[in-house]
Amino acid sequence: MSEQRSPIVRPSRLIVTIAILAAASLTTAPAVTGQASAPAWLDAYREPASRIIGEAMANTFAWDRLAELSDTFGHRLSGSPQLEQAIEWAAEQMRGDGLENVRLEPVMVPHWVRGSERARITRPSEHELVMLGLGGSIATPPDGVEAETLVVGSFDELDARADDVPGKIVVYNVPFTNYGQTVRYRTTGASRAARHGAVASLVRSVGPTAGRTPHTGAMTYTETDPQIPAAAVTAEDADLLQRMQDRGTPAWVRLEMSAQLLPDVESANVVAEIRGRELPEEVVVIGGHIDSWDVGTGSTDDGGGCIITWDALRILQRLNLRPRRTLRVVLWTNEENGLRGGTAYRDRHADQLADHVMMLESDGGVFRPRGFGFTGNDRARATVETIASLLVGIDAHRIGPSGGGADIGPSVRAAGIPSMSTDVDGSTYFTIHHTPADTMDKIDPTEVALNVAAVAVMAYVVADMPERLGQ
Amino acid sequence: MSEQRSPIVRPSRLIVTIAILAAASLTTAPAVTGQASAPAWLDAYREPASRIIGEAMANTFAWDRLAELSDTFGHRLSGSPQLEQAIEWAAEQMRGDGLENVRLEPVMVPHWVRGSERARITRPSEHELVMLGLGGSIATPPDGVEAETLVVGSFDELDARADDVPGKIVVYNVPFTNYGQTVRYRTTGASRAARHGAVASLVRSVGPTAGRTPHTGAMTYTETDPQIPAAAVTAEDADLLQRMQDRGTPAWVRLEMSAQLLPDVESANVVAEIRGRELPEEVVVIGGHIDSWDVGTGSTDDGGGCIITWDALRILQRLNLRPRRTLRVVLWTNEENGLRGGTAYRDRHADQLADHVMMLESDGGVFRPRGFGFTGNDRARATVETIASLLVGIDAHRIGPSGGGADIGPSVRAAGIPSMSTDVDGSTYFTIHHTPADTMDKIDPTEVALNVAAVAVMAYVVADMPERLGQ
Repeated sequence: MSEQRSPIVRPSRLIVTIAILAAASLTTAPAVTGQASAPAWLDAYREPASRIIGEAMANTFAWDRLAELSDTFGHRLSGSPQLEQAIEWAAEQMRGDGLENVRLEPVMVPHWVRGSERARITRPSEHELVMLGLGGSIATPPDGVEAETLVVGSFDELDARADDVPGKIVVYNVPFTNYGQTVRYRTTGASRAARHGAVASLVRSVGPTAGRTPHTGAMTYTETDPQIPAAAVTAEDADLLQRMQDRGTPAWVRLEMSAQLLPDVESANVVAEIRGRELPEEVVVIGGHIDSWDVGTGSTDDGGGCIITWDALRILQRLNLRPRRTLRVVLWTNEENGLRGGTAYRDRHADQLADHVMMLESDGGVFRPRGFGFTGNDRARATVETIASLLVGIDAHRIGPSGGGADIGPSVRAAGIPSMSTDVDGSTYFTIHHTPADTMDKIDPTEVALNVAAVAVMAYVVADMPERLGQ
Repeated sequence: MSEQRSPIVRPSRLIVTIAILAAASLTTAPAVTGQASAPAWLDAYREPASRIIGEAMANTFAWDRLAELSDTFGHRLSGSPQLEQAIEWAAEQMRGDGLENVRLEPVMVPHWVRGSERARITRPSEHELVMLGLGGSIATPPDGVEAETLVVGSFDELDARADDVPGKIVVYNVPFTNYGQTVRYRTTGASRAARHGAVASLVRSVGPTAGRTPHTGAMTYTETDPQIPAAAVTAEDADLLQRMQDRGTPAWVRLEMSAQLLPDVESANVVAEIRGRELPEEVVVIGGHIDSWDVGTGSTDDGGGCIITWDALRILQRLNLRPRRTLRVVLWTNEENGLRGGTAYRDRHADQLADHVMMLESDGGVFRPRGFGFTGNDRARATVETIASLLVGIDAHRIGPSGGGADIGPSVRAAGIPSMSTDVDGSTYFTIHHTPADTMDKIDPTEVALNVAAVAVMAYVVADMPERLGQ
C-alpha cells in the first residue's frame, strides 16, 4: 500500500483484551453512548453484529490461515509460480468454505525477475552493502557498474550539484519521515539522477532504521531520460556512505544487478461471493491483494488484507447471514508492480460497476483496527458512521476522512463508487514494508480477529440494510 | 563476546544527560555519600578524574573514530585483508596520538571463508530462507544438500526422536532466553545431530526475533561424529519451519554452502603504551578485539571495545597524566574464531605476566556503562570499589562479582592476574550480535564517551596508585 501513516504507539494485548471484554458487556447493556440518536433500522443489526464479533474472536482461524498462506508459498511476486499456486490454493479453500461463484478472473501481469544482485564498497576498502534492487529496474552490465558515490539529501541538492553528477552513482539519503514524503526518491530518483549523467541510483530504504533491513518497491523510468540501474540500500548503509562523503573520502561502489523484464504472463483475481437474497445484482466488494514483493512472505502486505476480507465472508456463511445484496471478496493480483488486477476488474465488470454499492480494500496491515477510512457522499458517510457504532466495543468505530485502495481505485474512479479502507494502528507497518521481515511473527492473532470482526460487521450491514448506501 | 546478559531496560539520553550534570556538580560538592569512608590516597585522584571525565565528554572523538574504523574497513574476519588494513590503520593512528611503543605483535590466525551460500524451502513450494553459515562449518557438496526438516526444541527432544533423524536436516528451534542457554545449539548442535544421522544442521539464530536478521558465530565439530554443514536461520524462519511441521507438512530444505578453511595467515595484536614513570615494568592492560564476524561492520562487537580502551590512553596522554606503572592497550586479533591473539599474548609475554597488575577487556558493547565486573582477591576488590566511587557522578560505579574477557583469559588464568570487564546496559546487545545490523547507528556518542571516561579513570588510578592492586 502507499498511504501515509502517522507514528502512533501500538497498544498492548492487554488493551485489546480490555476492549474485547468491553465489547462483551456492551452488547448486553441497555444503553450505550450514541445509541440514543441511532436510527431504528440499526437495532436489527445489534444481534447479528454480536454474533459476528463472537465468531471472529472465538478462535485464531484467520491468523492460522494467513500463516498457512505465508509459510506454504512464501512471497508471491507477479509472474512467479508461488503467486499462481497461492491463487489456486485460495480458490480451492474458498470452495471448501462453502462460498459461492468461486472463480479465477484471468489477468495478464508483468513478469519482472530480480535475478542475482550485489552492491559493495570497493574503495577505500572492500565491503558489502545490504541492498535490494528496485522493481522495474534494468540490469547493470554483466560485470557491474563501479563509480564514486555522490550522496544527496533532496532533489534540490541533486540539482544544485548537477555538475558533480556525471559518472557518479547518486545516493538519495533522505531519512524516513513518512511514506508520502520519501517514496518519491525510490519511484523517480533514477530518472532524475540519470538526467544529470549518473550511472546508477541508490536510494535509502523507505522505512525507519531497524535491523539493516533493505526495502524494495516499484520504480519507474521517464520516457525521456536514460535508463540506469536502481536499487535500495539500508538506512544504515546510506548513513555510512554519507559519513564517508562528509569525511572527505567518498566511497566507490560496485553495483551488480541481473534484473530482467520478461514477457507478461497470465495471473488472476480470485473472486468468491455470498449471493444476495433479494438484490443479487447489487454488489459490495471487499478484498486485499494476493501478490507481494519477492522478499519476506507478504504476510502484512497484503496476505492479511486477503485473509481478513475472505474470512468475513466465511464467518457470515457459517452464521447463515445471507445479506440482501451480493457480498463479493476479490483477492487482487499484481497490486505491487502494475495494478493489472484492479484495471482488469474495472474493464471486465464495466457494465456492472453502476451496481457496485461500495468497495473496501484492506492494504495497510492487519494490526489493531481503529475503524475505516471512507470516501462517499454525506448521506453515505452518515450511514457508515451509524454502522460503525456497532464496533465501539472493539474500539474500531472511527470513520476517517477518506478511504480507498490501489486495487479498487480504477473501478471507484470509473463509476464514483463509495470506497472504504480499513484503518489500523500503522506504527510498525513501514518498518517491515517491502522487506524480508514481512513475516507472520509481526502479526498478532487477536488483532487479526478484530479486523475480521470489524470488516464483517461493516460489510454485512452495508450489503443488507434496507436502503442502498448513499441513496 | 560470550557472556550472559540480562534484559535490563536501556536508559534514555535524558537520564545520561542528568547523570552528566550530576557528575559536574559532584566534583565540586564538599560531601558525597560514601566519601566519608574513602581512604586518604583517593583524594589525590579526584581532580584527575574530573579532568578525565571532562575530556572524554567534551566531544564525540571516540564515536567518530569508531565510525571511521567501521565505515572504512567494514567487517574484519580473521584472514581478511580488511582486518589487516584495520590493524595497520590503528597502529598508524596510535603513533599519531603520541602513544608509546606502538607495535604489531604477529599472530598466526585461522582463515575460514564463507563463500556463497543459500538455503531455501523446496517443498511444498519453493521460497528462500534467510540464513548465515556458521563459522567453522564445512561446505555442502557443490549441488547442495536437500532433505526433509526435523524441528526440535532441545537436545533431549533430538535424542528422543533419534529414529526420525537419519537423512534429515535437523532444525534447532530454541527461542532466545539468554546467550548462555541458547548458544550451545549453535556451537555443538551439528555434531549432536550428525551422531543420529542428520545430513545438515540449522539453528535458530541466537538472539531475539527482530528484522529477520540472521546471527552467525562459531561452531565446532567433535572428533568422533561425522562433520555436516551447519548454518543459522532467522528466528522468523525457524518459526515458519516449526509451523510447517506442526501442520503435518514438514518443509524440505536445500542448503548450499561453499565455506572453506584455508591455511593459517599472519595477523597481529596491536599494542601501544604510556610507559610508567616509576615502575614501567609493572603493566596494566586494557583492550578489546579488532577482529569481527564477516557481517555488519563489527561496530559493537568489538570495534567499540577497541576504541574506548585506546581512547582512554589517548586522553591520559593529552592530559599529561603519566601513571606510575605502564598502561598498555592491546587490540586483540582473532577473538571470534580461534582466540589466537589471546593465547599468543600469553605465550609471548609469559615472563612478564607476573608483573601484570590488572587486565581489563571491553567486549559487551559500548552502551550505557554501569560499572565493571571484577575478579581478584578481597583486598583488590575493595580497592577497585574505592576507585569506582570516582565514577558515581556518571553512574558507572558498580563493581560486579566477576570480570574478565575471552582475550585476556589465557593470561589471567596463567598468572592469576586480577581481571575486569566493562559492565554496560546489555539490553540491545544480542539483537545485533554477530549480525549484519552490528552497525554505527546502534551506538550513541554520549554512551561511548561515558565508557571512555569510566575506563580511563579506572585504568589510570590502578596504574598510578601507590600500592600495587591487591597487595
